[in-house]
Amino acid sequence: MDDLNLILMRTSIRHFDKNKKIKRDMLKILVQAGMCAPSAMNIQPWEFIVVSERNLLNLLAETLPNASMLREAGAAIVVCGRPGKDDRGVAEKFWVQDCSAATENILLAAEAVGLGAVWTGLYPDEGRLGQVRSLLSIPKEIIPLNVIPIGYAVEKPLPKDKWDEEKLHWEKWSS
Amino acid sequence: MDDLNLILMRTSIRHFDKNKKIKRDMLKILVQAGMCAPSAMNIQPWEFIVVSERNLLNLLAETLPNASMLREAGAAIVVCGRPGKDDRGVAEKFWVQDCSAATENILLAAEAVGLGAVWTGLYPDEGRLGQVRSLLSIPKEIIPLNVIPIGYAVEKPLPKDKWDEEKLHWEKWSS
Repeated sequence: MDDLNLILMRTSIRHFDKNKKIKRDMLKILVQAGMCAPSAMNIQPWEFIVVSERNLLNLLAETLPNASMLREAGAAIVVCGRPGKDDRGVAEKFWVQDCSAATENILLAAEAVGLGAVWTGLYPDEGRLGQVRSLLSIPKEIIPLNVIPIGYAVEKPLPKDKWDEEKLHWEKWSS
Repeated sequence: MDDLNLILMRTSIRHFDKNKKIKRDMLKILVQAGMCAPSAMNIQPWEFIVVSERNLLNLLAETLPNASMLREAGAAIVVCGRPGKDDRGVAEKFWVQDCSAATENILLAAEAVGLGAVWTGLYPDEGRLGQVRSLLSIPKEIIPLNVIPIGYAVEKPLPKDKWDEEKLHWEKWSS
């Protein structure tokens, strides 16, 4: 059950070693992990932008108050959705769920390769996602869901204990 | 980088050994993994219903054409959201993302403990989620997002190769 620890011990990392660069191959592995997520009808309505230029990371940090840790991050992955990916409306309904699963895979993969990461939300905040769209030249048909600052952790906090037995219901709803 | 394999090798399992029961403790671990997901502002707007009664699993299978594998499954976890969890509207905006991350954790945890699982969607299909709501007595303020049939795999297919270099953009959008 060792693999379980990856999931149970993952935690959001918000402080990074500014001097340690992240290899391009490693960032590619994180995106690969994202693409391994399941998606409704296997439509894979996702796209990934990897940002590693210092200047761009700083500009993103300036415009996103909830992602100021981008100033210390070695890179960021912007997980985007393409709601119009199929003509049956499947992606339209499920892209947020599919891209969120991909995001969780990236967070866990970061932990697995010795990096730290944190999910900072954009969608459905029109203001935030508009700014990211403009900075990264994202076309209209693509919606950026979040920004994941990534780097080498300068501290490794213990995960919060979020276990809550009351949220576990056996067989049917019990209140 | 061994932990990465859990993510890269996970695949949807749709055929289960009907005769192998799943221990209650193991199902609890899967829910624990779900609760280890990150959530916007750490609001944790989720609830989990674990179904293991044969009769209930069969009834769910009957009403959900996309979840017929429940007939073979030893159990199912229904991941639910509580959009009204906080009074600032955070859960309202982010519950789908938070609960999807929790779902991916459950799928990976199942793989980690030697089980198989598959994500079958409910929300935003009002018809499907209404039926599940009624069968499991889920109150109005709770929205079932999906049903995850779980069991011991009778076959272990290789994961699909979903790597698509064109969906990876460096620094800015590139089309």
